[in-house]
This record gives sequence, C-alpha cells and structure tokens, in this order.
Amino acid sequence: MSPRAIFYRIIEKITPDIADCTAVNVVTMVFGNVGWDSGTGVVFSRDVATGENRLYGEFLPVAQGEDVVAGIRTPMDIEEFKKRFPHLYEGLYRGVKLLEKVNKDVQDVEFTVERGVLYFLQARNAKMTALARVKTAVDMAKEGVITKEDALLYVSPDHVLQLLYPRIDPKAKAKPVAQGLPASPGAVSGQVVFHPDDAVRWAAQGRRVILARVETKPDDVHGFYVAVGVLTSRGGMTSHAAVVARAIGKPAVVGAETVEIHEEEKYMKIGDVVIREGDWVTIDGHTGNIYVGTVPTIEAELIPELEDLLGWADGYRRLGVRANADLPEDAAIARKFGAQGIGLLRIERMFRKPERLELLRSIILAESPEERRLHLERLYKMLKSDFKEVFKIMDGLPVIVRLIDPPLHEFLPKPEEVLEQIHQRKMRGEDASSLEKLYRRIKTLQEANPMLGHRGVRVGVTHPDFYYYLNKAILEATAELKKEGYRPVVEIMIPQVSDVREIIYVKERAILPALRDVEREFDVKLDVKIGTMIETVRGCLTIDEIAKHVDFISFGTNDLTQAVFSFSRDDAENKFIPQYLELKILDANPFETIDVKGVGRLVEYAAATAKEVNPAIEVGVCGEHGGDPRSIHFFHKTKVDYVSASPFRVPLTRLAAAQAAILARQGRTS
Amino acid sequence: MSPRAIFYRIIEKITPDIADCTAVNVVTMVFGNVGWDSGTGVVFSRDVATGENRLYGEFLPVAQGEDVVAGIRTPMDIEEFKKRFPHLYEGLYRGVKLLEKVNKDVQDVEFTVERGVLYFLQARNAKMTALARVKTAVDMAKEGVITKEDALLYVSPDHVLQLLYPRIDPKAKAKPVAQGLPASPGAVSGQVVFHPDDAVRWAAQGRRVILARVETKPDDVHGFYVAVGVLTSRGGMTSHAAVVARAIGKPAVVGAETVEIHEEEKYMKIGDVVIREGDWVTIDGHTGNIYVGTVPTIEAELIPELEDLLGWADGYRRLGVRANADLPEDAAIARKFGAQGIGLLRIERMFRKPERLELLRSIILAESPEERRLHLERLYKMLKSDFKEVFKIMDGLPVIVRLIDPPLHEFLPKPEEVLEQIHQRKMRGEDASSLEKLYRRIKTLQEANPMLGHRGVRVGVTHPDFYYYLNKAILEATAELKKEGYRPVVEIMIPQVSDVREIIYVKERAILPALRDVEREFDVKLDVKIGTMIETVRGCLTIDEIAKHVDFISFGTNDLTQAVFSFSRDDAENKFIPQYLELKILDANPFETIDVKGVGRLVEYAAATAKEVNPAIEVGVCGEHGGDPRSIHFFHKTKVDYVSASPFRVPLTRLAAAQAAILARQGRTS
Repeated sequence: MSPRAIFYRIIEKITPDIADCTAVNVVTMVFGNVGWDSGTGVVFSRDVATGENRLYGEFLPVAQGEDVVAGIRTPMDIEEFKKRFPHLYEGLYRGVKLLEKVNKDVQDVEFTVERGVLYFLQARNAKMTALARVKTAVDMAKEGVITKEDALLYVSPDHVLQLLYPRIDPKAKAKPVAQGLPASPGAVSGQVVFHPDDAVRWAAQGRRVILARVETKPDDVHGFYVAVGVLTSRGGMTSHAAVVARAIGKPAVVGAETVEIHEEEKYMKIGDVVIREGDWVTIDGHTGNIYVGTVPTIEAELIPELEDLLGWADGYRRLGVRANADLPEDAAIARKFGAQGIGLLRIERMFRKPERLELLRSIILAESPEERRLHLERLYKMLKSDFKEVFKIMDGLPVIVRLIDPPLHEFLPKPEEVLEQIHQRKMRGEDASSLEKLYRRIKTLQEANPMLGHRGVRVGVTHPDFYYYLNKAILEATAELKKEGYRPVVEIMIPQVSDVREIIYVKERAILPALRDVEREFDVKLDVKIGTMIETVRGCLTIDEIAKHVDFISFGTNDLTQAVFSFSRDDAENKFIPQYLELKILDANPFETIDVKGVGRLVEYAAATAKEVNPAIEVGVCGEHGGDPRSIHFFHKTKVDYVSASPFRVPLTRLAAAQAAILARQGRTS
Repeated sequence: MSPRAIFYRIIEKITPDIADCTAVNVVTMVFGNVGWDSGTGVVFSRDVATGENRLYGEFLPVAQGEDVVAGIRTPMDIEEFKKRFPHLYEGLYRGVKLLEKVNKDVQDVEFTVERGVLYFLQARNAKMTALARVKTAVDMAKEGVITKEDALLYVSPDHVLQLLYPRIDPKAKAKPVAQGLPASPGAVSGQVVFHPDDAVRWAAQGRRVILARVETKPDDVHGFYVAVGVLTSRGGMTSHAAVVARAIGKPAVVGAETVEIHEEEKYMKIGDVVIREGDWVTIDGHTGNIYVGTVPTIEAELIPELEDLLGWADGYRRLGVRANADLPEDAAIARKFGAQGIGLLRIERMFRKPERLELLRSIILAESPEERRLHLERLYKMLKSDFKEVFKIMDGLPVIVRLIDPPLHEFLPKPEEVLEQIHQRKMRGEDASSLEKLYRRIKTLQEANPMLGHRGVRVGVTHPDFYYYLNKAILEATAELKKEGYRPVVEIMIPQVSDVREIIYVKERAILPALRDVEREFDVKLDVKIGTMIETVRGCLTIDEIAKHVDFISFGTNDLTQAVFSFSRDDAENKFIPQYLELKILDANPFETIDVKGVGRLVEYAAATAKEVNPAIEVGVCGEHGGDPRSIHFFHKTKVDYVSASPFRVPLTRLAAAQAAILARQGRTS
C-alpha cells in the first residue's frame, strides 16, 4: 500500500478487486552495503550503445541498488570490476550470458555482491540504440542464440530509418523554437537562405544552406538540390516541398505556421526571434522541430549487419519492393538500397530545370496546334536523355513511368504573382498588356479544385498529342538503349483513370501510335507493358473492366485516400487532422497509415478482382503507404505483388515486408 | 427498288439478304382525284395541340395524298368537311375512334374518299405537344380507352417539365448567338444588367432584368430574386449560379464561355456583338441557348389533368418524394407541387441577405471566442425566424435541415478582390493596413481544394460552438411552433461525414446540448431525428457503423459522384466532360444521371446495409439525381425510401417514381 505501489496499480488499471488477490514474490534480501567485499551493479549482456559483444555496465562497492540510481557516488566501470574481482566477473559473465540465451535477447541485469557472493536480483530485455539493436540481433542470430526470424522481428523499421538518416544527438540539450510537420526525415544544421538562387550561390561558395520558403514550387527545385534541408511555413505532408524533399532524401520541415517568412526582405520571425539570411538554424525532419543555431547531430551509419539483416529479409518476404524515383540520382540510391525496380517515376519532376519549365509553359500557352507541336518536339528530346539515364541505372529491372499527372496550370505562374507584376508595371507607367493576356489565360486554366480537375489521363484524352510525345521520349530511350546492348524493362502507366474507355482511348490515340513509330524508325521490337494507376474510387469499383485492358495496375493510395475521405491532404493536414487525432476521431493519419476499413477495403477488392479477371496482371502500390510498416502488413495480406517506397525507405520496407510474412506464417496478427 | 425504298432500307439496316424476302402488302388502289365527290385527308383522333377530344385535321377535295403534303392548294378544316359531308364524317369519326380504341392511343389517320366512299389508308400513334399528351392520356384513361398505368407510362417526365416552365415558342425563327450549360429550365427575355444591385434598382422600376455575371457568389443572391433569369460565363452545372437558380426556379444559362462579360464596364461581347446594360436578351434554360433581343416564349400551363395524373402516380409509386428547398418561397412551391416534405434545407442559403453575410463574416474573422459567441448569439436569432417560416409552411411534414456545409472561406471576399482594393488604396496614397490584415486572414483560410477541405462536419468538430448555435436556432423554432399549436417535424442532418466518430462527437458536443438547453428553457419535449448525409465514399463503406448512430441517412449523390470519379464538377463540366461525352468515354454526364456501376453500387450497398443494421432507419437521396428520371428508376430498385428534388422537379419526380414502380411490376426494364 505504498504510494508508489498504489500509483502503479492505477496506471496499470489493476482495480481494487484484482489487487486484493495480487501475488507477491518473497525473496531473500541481500545486502551490498555491508563492507568493501560487497556492492551492487547493473550490467548489460552487450554494449547497448554500439551493440558490441562485451559486458557493459557499472558496479558501486558498499552500496544498495538505490545508491547506484541516486548517483551520489561515481560507480566503477565493469572493466574495472573485472580487474578487481576476476572471479566474481567470471560468474557474472556466465550468468548474464545464460540469461541472454534463455531469454533470447540482450539482458539488462541487476546484481549484488554480499560478502564476496554474487546474487542476481533482476534480469530483463535491454533497451538500446538503433545501431545496437541491429548489430546485436544479427550477431545473436549468427551465434545461434536466436533464429533469423527472431532477429528480423527484433529490429523495428524505425530502427532502420534511424540508421539511414542523421538525427539530433539525444544528449544535446537544445530547445526547439518552433515546430512544423516532419515531412522528410533527417536532422541538419545550415545557414538559412530565402531564395533558391541564393541557395545555389551560397552553396557554390561551399556553405551548407537551409532553404526557407513560404511554400515551394517546381521553379524552386534547383534550390533543393544544393540545400542541406528545407523549411516551409505553409503546406502539408504532400506539399511540393515535402514530396520533393522525401524523394531526394533531404530533411524537411514544412507547414511551420508560427514561422513568419519574409522572402523578399530575407528574414523570418518566430515569435520575437528574428532570423536573418546567413543565420544558422537546425531542423529535425524526424520530429518537425526547428532550432536556432547549430545542434549536434549524429550521422547516418551504414553497418554491414544491416546489410546482412536485409539480405535475410529478402528471403522471407512475399512482397516485392520497388522505389518511387524520378531522377537519376534517386534511382542510384534506390538501387543501392536494394530496390527491385522503380514503381513510380513521375515525369513532372523532370521539369525542375528552368529551361524545361519554360518550354512546358510554352506548350501549355501555345496558340496553335503547330506552335504546340514545335515545342513538344523540342521537349521530348530533352526528356529522352533523362529517361535513358534512369533506365541505364536500373538496367535489367523494371521502371514504371507515369504519364504526366498534375493539372497543367500547376506549371504556370500563380495568378496573384502575375497580378502583382501587372500592378508594378502600371505603377511605373509601363505597358502591361502582355502580362494581362497571360493573366487571363492563367485564369481560364485555373480550377476550383485542381486535385479533382483537368489532370492525369483527362489531359491525355483532350490532348493526345502531348501524351504521344511523352511516350515517344520513353520509347526512343528504350529503343536506343536496346541497340546499345542494355536491357531496359519499361512499363508505361496511365494516371487518374476512372473508366476503362479512357485507357482504350489513349492507348489507341497516343501510346500505340508512338510505339509503332518508334519500332519502325529504330527497326526494333519493344516489349513494353502498359498499365494504369488505380487512384480513383471508380477505378477500384470498375476494376473488372479495367484489368482486361492492362498489363499492370498500381494503387495510388495517396489520391485514393483523398477520394475515400473527401479530404484534400494539403488542406486537411494543416487544418483539422491534428485535432481529429487528438480527439481520437481518427486513430492514425490516413495519409501515413492506410485506412484499412475504407481505402484498404477498396484495395483488397480491386487487387483480388484484377487477378481473377487477368491472372497475369502485376499489382503494386506506389502511394506513400508503400513505405509505411503498418500499411505493408496490410498489403501483405492482399493480392498486391509489390510495394514502392521513396528510395530512403526501401531498406525499412524490405524489413517490414519480411516481418509481415513471418508474423503471418506464425499465425500472429501484426 | 425506288430510290426512296432503297434509302429507307439502308437507314433501317435492312440488308439485301433480308430485303430479298421482305413482305409486301398489296392493297386496292383508291383515287381521291377523280371528281368533286372525291378527295383525301389527314385526321387526328384528338387535338394534338391542346388535347381536346375532337377530330382535328384537314381534307382536300379532288386530290391524292401527295397533293395535301405538297401544300399547293389550301385544304379545308375537318369541321368544314363535317358540314359538307356529314355522312362521310360520321363514318370517319366512328372509324378513327375505333382505331384509337384498338391501338390504345391517339391516332394519326390518312383517308381517301373515292366517289363518295370512305377508305382508311393508314393509321399510327400521333405525335403531340406536352399539353396534349397529358390531357389525352388522362382523358383516355377516364374514358376507359386505356388503363391508368398506360396513361402514366404515356406521359414522359420531360412532358411534365415542359408544362411547368415557359419555353421558346417553337414557331419562333430566332438564331442563338451563343450557348452555355442549361443550368435551370425555362425560357425568358429581359433587359441585361451586370450587377445585383443594379438588378434590384431596375426591378424596383418594374423592369424585367436578366442578371449577367462572370460567376456569382452568395453576396449576389439578392439579384437572383428580382431577376427573371441568370446568365454566367463561368461555372458548371453545380456552380453557385446554377444551384441557386434551380432551387428558386429561375431560368439560368451558365458557363457560356464565348460570352465575354465586363461587369465593371457594364457590357458583354459575343464575337463581334456588343450587348450593353439595358439591351434585351433571351435565354433558354432548356437548351442553354442565348439570343439577342426578345424571342416569343410560351408560358407554363398548369392543367387539371396533370393534377389527376400525378394523383394516380402517387398511388403507384414506392419512393417518397421530397423537395430540396432552402427558403420559405421554395417551400411553398414544393408543397404546392406535392412534395411530402423537405429532403434538404441548406442553411447556407439563408445568408443571402447582406446583413447576415456580414454577421457570418464577423463570426469567421472573430479574434476571440467571446467576440465570436456574441456574433453567434445575434446570428442564431435571425436564422430562427427563417426556420419558423419554413416549418410553418411544411407543417406536419418532415423538414431535414442540413448543418452548414461549405468551407467558411467561401463566405469571405475573394483574395484577388481584396488585393485589388489594396492596390487602389495605395495608388491613392491611402492606408491599406486593415485590408492587408483581412487579406492575410483570407489567405490563411484559403484552401487548395475547397471541395475536399475544412467543411461540413469538420467545421462542426473544430468549432462545436458554431454547430451548437445553429442547432439552437433550429430547435427554438421547433419549440416555439409547438407551443403555438403547430406540428413541426424536424430532422437535423450532419454533412460530409467520413467516420461515425464525427457524428458521435458533434452529437455530444453540439446537438444534444442544444436540445437539452431548448427543452429546459421552453419546458417542452422535442422529438427530433438526427441523421447524416452520406456523400463521402468512406461514409458508404463504413455505413454499418454509422447506421447504428443515426435515425436517417440521405445520399448526397452530387459530392459522392465527385469523389467516386475524382471529378470536380465545376471544373469537369466546363473542361472535359463535353469531350468525354462526344468521344463516348462517358455515356451520360454522371452529375445528371447516376453512374450505376460506380456511384450506384455504393448507394445500393450502403442503403441495404443501413437497413440491415438499423431497420427503422430512413434512407433518402437529396443529390440532384433525385430529380432525374433515369436515376429514379435506379433508386426504385434499391432500399432508398424517398428521393428529394428541386421544387420545380417534384411533379416529374412523382411521375417517374410511379413509372419505375409500374415497369418493375410489369417485369419490364426501364
């Protein structure tokens, strides 16, 4: 009935009626404080920081357990204990290792020595760093202490993630000044700049810069590549900044609404703190925390034990693992991390270079089909070389290229920016008529709900010439590589399909004509799969028709989640999802972990029906859920063949897929 | 083998192999051109213009059939024929009426008189006006020529619609100068104005005005009420202009993109034609046509036979019919047209009056909870009187009030407008800081995809006080009416639900507290149903959980269609749906006729599951599909209890529901 015991019973929900018959262990009391041949200590069976196979801990002579905890006297290292009391150490070592063998994990042991006699007080499984967790699990499996299956289950996907990204040193005592959404993992310090061009200039001088923007758009991406991290004050987990940062593996904190960013004036304000261009800040993409100044970080450690573990994982998992990679550098990372192909290459990301964006804008704004075709001819040649690079890196492995997906107006300047320029010109008494024309054109293309607008295959249907040239770029790249002796495996994916007739139409009007033309021009036979992204609800509900006309499908679970909930991710994650999670209206953010009851049900149905209708069909998942462990456990139980995750999440995805398979085989729920 | 015969065989797809054995009728040739006791004529068994039960037609003496058609000589009216040849008329009358009885429909008969002997050449079912179709069908049923079921099947819902709205006189030879979307039926001429305030001023002077705007918003609605019609150059079939016009039964043509409207300069341009304020135009909401000048229209005719027919329809149909009505005037029309209640009352439509909109804006922009509450207190008292009026009109019939649905920022000025004002102030050297503050606030509330944003129940969850006061207004209105001796039947509907926990939360935090407070204050027991709109896909997929916590559900098939297709209606109907229909990628516009394979499947599943889980649950449809005949045939076959349509579509909905029931009973597909 001590206060501590009562408190524990309350938090463990041991109500009085249960407590009345709680069992009590009665054991011999031993004393470590009865002389210099006595003492007490704590020891781990392996090093819980590094994972090394050596005892790790400390011993305090003439003391009871609580004296060690109190920290009044400095205890001796266990190495010192070994020197001083070799016999006791010998017993301790054997006991601890026996406990490790029996309990099948690294042990955290309390012991006491009373007048030269060693007593074990308590042993439990040790908590340890990600590094130690991976190393000890693999070592124990190799030593035969545990099975490989155990090792795979001991390491969590989060451990793997921690090993791949730098993170804030847990010993650092820094206090964050603001918090945003943890959009892309990794912690990093840098000098803040407010414009992508400044980022490029500063980086050229060898400085580490963090790019801070209110929000970002495709024009800004050259700044991403030179920056060590990205910070925005607006946007959710799928905002442009977030998605690009994740794709290229740069730490990012987005939607930090308490940070007032003044891009033009080149400073930002957090409460009363003013941070100017060149000031150092640290951002933590694991937590969303933002710090002023530099905070020590721990660098990523790629250890051989992780390679071993992932190798074992590959032997257990049913699900294939691909990567979402848009650019050659992403593809290289993906391949290094063991991706079995690219599950999603987004063409639109290839427009990051200013001259291409300009060209794309010319295509969109072209005033005649002839002018349009001229620009398309130039564009497709540029894209072809990018495709060749990626296909080369992934040689022999499949690459799914998705035809352009966002609404075209997303590539145009924002109307308010143009309006601002018009006003400035007018203020200066200059002619603004060309800008006014541009403004009107943008306004015509603008949409009330771009997410549900004129995008994806709908653009392919209304502008088959655009789709034709995209396909030509992909197919010529394939043909040229084939002639050069490579083995490109290319799959073309049509986005946003809601009716099979959309597929039939763009195949007939754009994809097959491009295929015929390239095959004739290069005198080569191309074996290219044509498939579709399943990301509309109707795509799922009419899969029986769709599956007959495609070689593969891939679930776009991001958009599908938006459609099933009627949530726009950008709006929801900033405006109400946090409150929904707090009020437990949602158990998890459905954009991170798949909503099994709603979205999952559609995926399960559509995957199974697709296989029934077309047994040869290949079924994948390329939404961000493909890299989420809980979601992977769900996909394992469906007819999905593979998942595709961002390159940096490929290792954890390999592990999670293996865990799902092992747990399912053991009949355990995950 | 005459050219005409060959041509007919081609268009009727009678191929040569069939034609080889085509049967030929050989009949006696009679001659109407052999003297003054001969002639030929055409007669209808009833008046095909008015439906009157009298022979209607003409006779040309000394002529063959082709002479009548050629129109060289003027034939005599059949009345004249009766006077001149009473015996022949007698035989003609008996023959025609016999044919009508045998063929069970109004007959279109060709006859010839050869030397005083009457011959019938041909008889077929007559084509006639909507008015005649209704009248003859009802008359024939009353006379016993056909059954009531036949009468109900003879009249099409489109006939009913034509009888309720004025339309362009088919004899008018006017040519349209432009075409938009036929957003709300009816044809009307008026003087064009470009601002709602001008509309009010001009109408006060007794002029008939047509309000032309680029697009409309809630601020403009005072202009709708005084205008005879509405024309916009932007927006789709659910744009604000379209929905409001339909709701209040005003003809409207929207999204007429070739019409350049210059609101500020008060003129519009169609090609080279400039139309200034005060110029007459005619719009046709049946076809979307726009005419310059006045074009003759035919006024609506409410005939007693239609009342009879709809009365019979009520005896056959299984589906209940309610109306979507937001304001007292809509409710009155709905009741007059036989609605059995209101299936959807949209609170947001009550903010049309400028002072209320102002108040709502104050609520949205309030800087403290206290300020907010103060405004809410004022607002709810205003709303209460509106609710009382509607409930009184619908006394004894159910009224479903939907809690506020659109995102709050839709009630705020557009950011670009504010930006414009800021620039103007600055140009004049004035202070714009308050406007700049407003601008920033609006930008914070703005959303990337408002359709999928912070709206519906999500506002209720994040701002329960707002929902509380809305409920208080509804419930106090109910309580007061009850005390006054009325029998209000009120149902409260929660919109945009995607998880049952949203319902549980707003019930506990807003609806039930308001109910308890009102019951206590008024010392009265209120029997109010609480239900939810099913308009998200997840709402359908998790209906088993939702149905246990509500008294009714109502499918919002507009939003559901958007979510299933991932189409934003406003964007889709202007940008790609027309092309999809042309290319036959879509068979029908899914926003007009329900998509059975996708949306329909979800409705069918959710309705059946809801009834299984909660047999007492009431299931309705309040999307626009509720007033679409083909969709009604589908709903008849599901577990839906009633459909709700705009007030002017209630009569045709009653008929279509009866037709669905009759066809189903006859085992015929519809």
